[in-house]
Amino acid sequence: MGGEARRPRRAVRAAGAEFDLVRSLARATRVARSDVRMGIGDDAALVRVPPRSELVLAVDTLVAGVHFPRSAAAFDIGWKALAVNLSDLAAMGARPAWATLALTLPRADGTWVAAFARGFARLARQHGVSLVGGDTTRGPLTVTVQAHGFLPRDGGLLRSGARVGDVILISGCLGDAAAGLRLAMQGPKSPAAAGRMPAAQRTLLQRLNRPQPRVALGLALRPLAHAAIDVSDGLAQDLTHVLRASGVGAVLQADQLPASGALRRYRPLPQQRWPLQLAGGDDYELCFTLPPQRLRRALQAARRIGVALTPIGRVVAGRGLQVHDPAGKAVVVSRPGFTHFA
Amino acid sequence: MGGEARRPRRAVRAAGAEFDLVRSLARATRVARSDVRMGIGDDAALVRVPPRSELVLAVDTLVAGVHFPRSAAAFDIGWKALAVNLSDLAAMGARPAWATLALTLPRADGTWVAAFARGFARLARQHGVSLVGGDTTRGPLTVTVQAHGFLPRDGGLLRSGARVGDVILISGCLGDAAAGLRLAMQGPKSPAAAGRMPAAQRTLLQRLNRPQPRVALGLALRPLAHAAIDVSDGLAQDLTHVLRASGVGAVLQADQLPASGALRRYRPLPQQRWPLQLAGGDDYELCFTLPPQRLRRALQAARRIGVALTPIGRVVAGRGLQVHDPAGKAVVVSRPGFTHFA
Repeated sequence: MGGEARRPRRAVRAAGAEFDLVRSLARATRVARSDVRMGIGDDAALVRVPPRSELVLAVDTLVAGVHFPRSAAAFDIGWKALAVNLSDLAAMGARPAWATLALTLPRADGTWVAAFARGFARLARQHGVSLVGGDTTRGPLTVTVQAHGFLPRDGGLLRSGARVGDVILISGCLGDAAAGLRLAMQGPKSPAAAGRMPAAQRTLLQRLNRPQPRVALGLALRPLAHAAIDVSDGLAQDLTHVLRASGVGAVLQADQLPASGALRRYRPLPQQRWPLQLAGGDDYELCFTLPPQRLRRALQAARRIGVALTPIGRVVAGRGLQVHDPAGKAVVVSRPGFTHFA
Repeated sequence: MGGEARRPRRAVRAAGAEFDLVRSLARATRVARSDVRMGIGDDAALVRVPPRSELVLAVDTLVAGVHFPRSAAAFDIGWKALAVNLSDLAAMGARPAWATLALTLPRADGTWVAAFARGFARLARQHGVSLVGGDTTRGPLTVTVQAHGFLPRDGGLLRSGARVGDVILISGCLGDAAAGLRLAMQGPKSPAAAGRMPAAQRTLLQRLNRPQPRVALGLALRPLAHAAIDVSDGLAQDLTHVLRASGVGAVLQADQLPASGALRRYRPLPQQRWPLQLAGGDDYELCFTLPPQRLRRALQAARRIGVALTPIGRVVAGRGLQVHDPAGKAVVVSRPGFTHFA
C-alpha cells in the first residue's frame, strides 16, 4: 500500500475500533433471548417474530447539545437513548424485544463507551431487551436507537382511536423534565456538581436524564384504551397529534395535571407549573384516552403496576385542545412542546 | 408561556418541522406494501413478517466528511444511505422489505431534503422497500438507515460458513470506489464541477456515490454459497472477517481481481490497482465462498441477473489471507480497509 499517498486517518470503523466498541457494547448489554438467531457479528442480525404477532418499530435520535446537555453523563445518555424508544413502544401497548444502536462518537473513548453501555444495559435488562445490531462511526456525538417489539395482530394503541366522551389520562407526573432542563441549562456543568444540588433539584434532573418508559402500563392498558401517545414533546403538542388523528377535540383541567413534590418545591404556584406541564417535553409519560366505563379498571391496573394514573380531561366533539383553569378560564399554551437544547 | 425565560430555539422536531420533513420523505418514498399496517404517523410503525420467515436487520450510519465528501450531492447521500444497508441484507441473501431513517440536519432545508428523498426513493423503488419510520433532528449532518428484510427460517448466508476447498468469488469489479474517493478528495468541490470531469473519472465517482447493492445476486446465490460478506471496508479486511468466523485461511490471485475499464484508465498498471482493490472500501460488492461443484451454477445465475461474478481464489486450511501476484510472490496489504474521509 506504500504507493497510496495521503490516506485519511480518521475512520473508526475500518481501524478495527468499531469492532471492539460494538463488541464491548454487545458484551455489556447481553440479554439472552431465544428469538435471536444472530446478534452482533455478521452483516445483519437474524431474529424471529412470534406467530400471530405484528412487529413494532420505533427509531429516535439523540444529538449532544440538542436532546441532552453536553454535560450529561455517558450512563444517562445510554439510558435515555433506549428509554425514548421504549417509550414509543409503550405508547403502542407493545412488548419490547430487541434494539439496535448507531453510535457516532468524536473519538474511540473506551471509558465513555463503557459507561454509556452500562446505562443502556441497565434499562435493557429491566425490559428484557437484547442489543442485536449496531454501527459505530466517528463524528459529532449522536445516538440513534431503534427498538423493536411485538403486538398481537391488529392490536395496539393508535393515535387515531380517541372518541368523543373518552376520559383523558396521564401516567406519572408532568413537568419534571422541563424543570430539570432549566436546571441543566442554568446549573452545574458536571455530573459531580449536580451531585451537590438539593434533593428536589436532583430529582428533577434525574427525571430529565433517566426517563422511565411506561412499558408495563402500556401493556396493561392496551385492552382498555382507545388511543395513546407518549409525551415526549409536551402534553399539549402530543395530545394534539391524537386529536388530529382522531378528528376530535379535548378539554383539559389544568389543576388536574399531576405534579411531583420536587416540581411543587421548584414552582410553588400552580400557574407557574402549568407551562412546564403542558408545553415542556421529555417526561416520557403516557397519555391515554378511554371510555368512562373502563376508568375504574384502568386505575386498578395502574395501581397494581405501581404507576400513578390521573384523569386530566375529556375528549369532546370539534377540533383542538382547550385547557381550563379552576375558574373555567382558558390557559394559553403559546409555544407548545418546545423544549430541546440550544 | 410568557413567564418562561430563555427558551432554546433550535429544536427541529418540536417546532413541527420534523413532522413536515418526515412526511415529505414519506410521500417521496411511498412504496405500497400489504405488510405495512402503519407506516410514518404514529409513535411506531406496525409491520408484518411473513410466516416461516426470519427477520433480517441491518443498520449503518453515514457521517458527512467521514463516509461521504462534504461536497456530495443530497441525492447521492440519500441513495447511499439506503444502499449500504441493502448491501448488508444482500450479503445475507435476504429480500429487503422496509427501512427506517434517522436524519440529523444542520437546518430544515426543504430543497436539500427533497433531493435527498429523491435519491433514497429511487433506490427504494428499485427494491420495493417502503420507508416506514423516521426521526429528523437538528445537528451535524448524519444519516442512519436501518433496513429490514426476510430470510427463510434457518436460511441465509453467514460469515461462518466458509469451508476448505471453497472457491472465492466477487461480484462486479473492485477498486472503483477507492479511486473515486481519491478523485473526490483531490477533485472538484461541487457536483457541477464533477459534471465536467472526464467520463472515466465520473464513472469512478459514481461508483463511490451510488453503489448498487447486489440484492438479486444475494438471493440467487443463497442456495449455492457457503458464506458471504459485503465488501464495504475493503476486500482484505472483509474477507478476513469471513475467514476468522469460519476458522479457515484463503489464497487470492491478485491478477484475478476484476477491474473496470474506468479503473484501468485511472491506474494502468495492475500493481497500482491492487491496493485500491484489496484495501479500498465502499465498493459494496459481494464476496461469496462456495464449493467448486456449484461454481458453474453460480456463474450461470449471475449471468442471468446481469452481474459479473469472478473467481478470485480459494479457501485453504490454516489462518489468514494470502494474496499472490502472477509470479506467486506475496502481495502485502499494509493497511487493509482504511478508506473513510478525513
